[in-house]
Amino acid sequence: MADLWTSDPRETLRVGPDFDLAAFDRASRGGFTGKKRDAERLIAERGALLAELQERLYANGRAGGTENVLIIVQGLDTAGKGGIARHVMGLVDPQGVALRSFGVPTPEERSHHYLWRIKKALPKPGQIGLFDRSHYEDVLVVRVDELVEPEVWSKRFDEINKWEKSLVDSGTRILKFALMVSYQEQAKRLMERLDRPDKRWKYSMSDLKTRANWDAYQEAYSDVFRLTSTAHAPWHVLPADTKWFSRLVVTEFLTRTLIEMDLQWPRPRWQPEAQRKRLVATMTPQALAESLSETKATVLEAMEASIDVNEDAAELKTHRYDDLSRDAAFAAIEAKRAFWENDLATTLRQKRELLQALAPELVPADPSMNVSTPKADKSAGKASRSAGKGKSSGKGKKGSSKGGKKAKKSS
Amino acid sequence: MADLWTSDPRETLRVGPDFDLAAFDRASRGGFTGKKRDAERLIAERGALLAELQERLYANGRAGGTENVLIIVQGLDTAGKGGIARHVMGLVDPQGVALRSFGVPTPEERSHHYLWRIKKALPKPGQIGLFDRSHYEDVLVVRVDELVEPEVWSKRFDEINKWEKSLVDSGTRILKFALMVSYQEQAKRLMERLDRPDKRWKYSMSDLKTRANWDAYQEAYSDVFRLTSTAHAPWHVLPADTKWFSRLVVTEFLTRTLIEMDLQWPRPRWQPEAQRKRLVATMTPQALAESLSETKATVLEAMEASIDVNEDAAELKTHRYDDLSRDAAFAAIEAKRAFWENDLATTLRQKRELLQALAPELVPADPSMNVSTPKADKSAGKASRSAGKGKSSGKGKKGSSKGGKKAKKSS
Repeated sequence: MADLWTSDPRETLRVGPDFDLAAFDRASRGGFTGKKRDAERLIAERGALLAELQERLYANGRAGGTENVLIIVQGLDTAGKGGIARHVMGLVDPQGVALRSFGVPTPEERSHHYLWRIKKALPKPGQIGLFDRSHYEDVLVVRVDELVEPEVWSKRFDEINKWEKSLVDSGTRILKFALMVSYQEQAKRLMERLDRPDKRWKYSMSDLKTRANWDAYQEAYSDVFRLTSTAHAPWHVLPADTKWFSRLVVTEFLTRTLIEMDLQWPRPRWQPEAQRKRLVATMTPQALAESLSETKATVLEAMEASIDVNEDAAELKTHRYDDLSRDAAFAAIEAKRAFWENDLATTLRQKRELLQALAPELVPADPSMNVSTPKADKSAGKASRSAGKGKSSGKGKKGSSKGGKKAKKSS
Repeated sequence: MADLWTSDPRETLRVGPDFDLAAFDRASRGGFTGKKRDAERLIAERGALLAELQERLYANGRAGGTENVLIIVQGLDTAGKGGIARHVMGLVDPQGVALRSFGVPTPEERSHHYLWRIKKALPKPGQIGLFDRSHYEDVLVVRVDELVEPEVWSKRFDEINKWEKSLVDSGTRILKFALMVSYQEQAKRLMERLDRPDKRWKYSMSDLKTRANWDAYQEAYSDVFRLTSTAHAPWHVLPADTKWFSRLVVTEFLTRTLIEMDLQWPRPRWQPEAQRKRLVATMTPQALAESLSETKATVLEAMEASIDVNEDAAELKTHRYDDLSRDAAFAAIEAKRAFWENDLATTLRQKRELLQALAPELVPADPSMNVSTPKADKSAGKASRSAGKGKSSGKGKKGSSKGGKKAKKSS
């Protein structure tokens, strides 16, 4: 992946103090040297990584964590806001996503402060929120259409900055994207909506009115970028004449943001051994034997998937750093593997013991059930050791770190 | 698809007056003769069809239609409710989906009528809503845990039936699914959550408490099925010991429900010709020429995709009916094709005229731009006719119905 980016898009596309919207090339590629098919492949490849990172975020939310992500997508008609919602959010579990699009305010919304409806729609802990339009409409369309006086909207920039800061301080990562199409590309996209009977529902007669205010919108957007691209919530302007490019960028940002959050599976507050014992009291010996027979493969597969994600994350996070950083990151991963393997050994030992007490004849004799016994791993034959052997293992052993490498990765 | 179903699952799995939960086989396949890989293939195949049907539903909602779909998923812990949300809803555009899961009520929710929080979460017109648990918790956990007196919960069945009837009468299709796992399968799934460090966050110590009330829940579910499987909103009980099977069933139900709704693309209230003229006034001749050059391929591709969906729908809808019904369904599709082709001819003619007025030198000479002129379709050479020729066509012609068959289907 890194090969196709000449620079980190989070830096290239970030709005700094010198940003000039008028000079911005809306057909550029912000440091990406690939083609459409490369982008599609990269987005698909990110799918598995994103799916697990998002589940970790969600799991942490359920376990009492406060972190979440808010993606704000702004842009004029046809810029591709809906496509981002559809294609990028479509990569992750819909249960962990809070999508919201903000149109013309309802009478109830209008009767409140402009942030009222926005606050109500914020993602919950563990969620990834996506706003298709947002509170920025209150300094864009509201300004261009002169729905309030300049002294009203001009005070909102500061207010927005402060409010966004409070969100960031309470655990929200805010990613702000402005999709910028060129004037002629917008015309071609509107024309396609007119030409295709299956897309006419997307066209509104007001689109041409908004288009007539193009220059006023560019000016309003310039002020938004100048006044609200803060250190805690910077703007990123995406050249949106190429739809696949903006989708790639948002996918990449989301992935890298989740990686930086360094999310791990939450540790439970209860003891697995105690719960397992209570659960077994409700099981038939046959069901326990079936569960035991699947344990090793299931857990090792999950472990490999989880470690693959950590490796991909470490790779992305450290590829420009020195070897020492990389070594540290990969040492941490090996520690995780050791944790999983020890945990699995404990699990197997307990389940065998519980089954032994219920129905000794169902306990499998295969010593390779014991994942962390190097001797057992090396033994060629099956069923060469007694079932009881497993009891004494799993303590103080180094994880045989390649033991599960062959396990199929969970899809 | 039909080949692998010995019967329509909507009938086989429907709860009728004789339904007996105790006798229900939770590992059965409700008339499906395929295997897991068949189910996965069929779910993936439904993807394209579902995606377009859902977009039509959404488009109709935006155009003022009131119809929507509400999927209610009930089941005890580990039954696979979340998997339905993830895998089935993951097939369609997240923008058209309203997912909601109902846990223990908040203090605010508890202070209101039990339907208050449910009503607030109903899908909007054009949306597909999915409830992971629902108002049925108020006659299930509330009953089993004795949170209210029997005279309170026992009155709710009637109230729920009447309320659901009012929803159906106002345009909502309600699909109610109860995922029923067996007692031993639930134990094995809970055990997996204990065994896998990456799934422990899904386990709650209260799961064993709920499991201890298994018989009381079966009795409560039996009453739900007996008292609330109405003609307007019947229950379907899914054997949930096989996860892929319940996902297949819900996918199939959703597809067939959307097909029965017979959704078409809404017709706009404005005239495309008038809007196009206004739009062209804002375009460069070059942009218009580029748009014109893409029109035919773009519209034909969309037409083929749209007609494929109508054909698949007609196939599923009529495959057990007589030939006359099928003929009628396919005649309606040919009429749609004629509409698209006439519409395209009008579009091409107008765009050529508009370009002619702006920059005659940019008007392509290729007469094959005109889709509905049989003569032009037959002409072998390119650029053999004058550009002006297109003007007189597109009226009273029969659509050359195979004209666009070769267009690539939109993915």
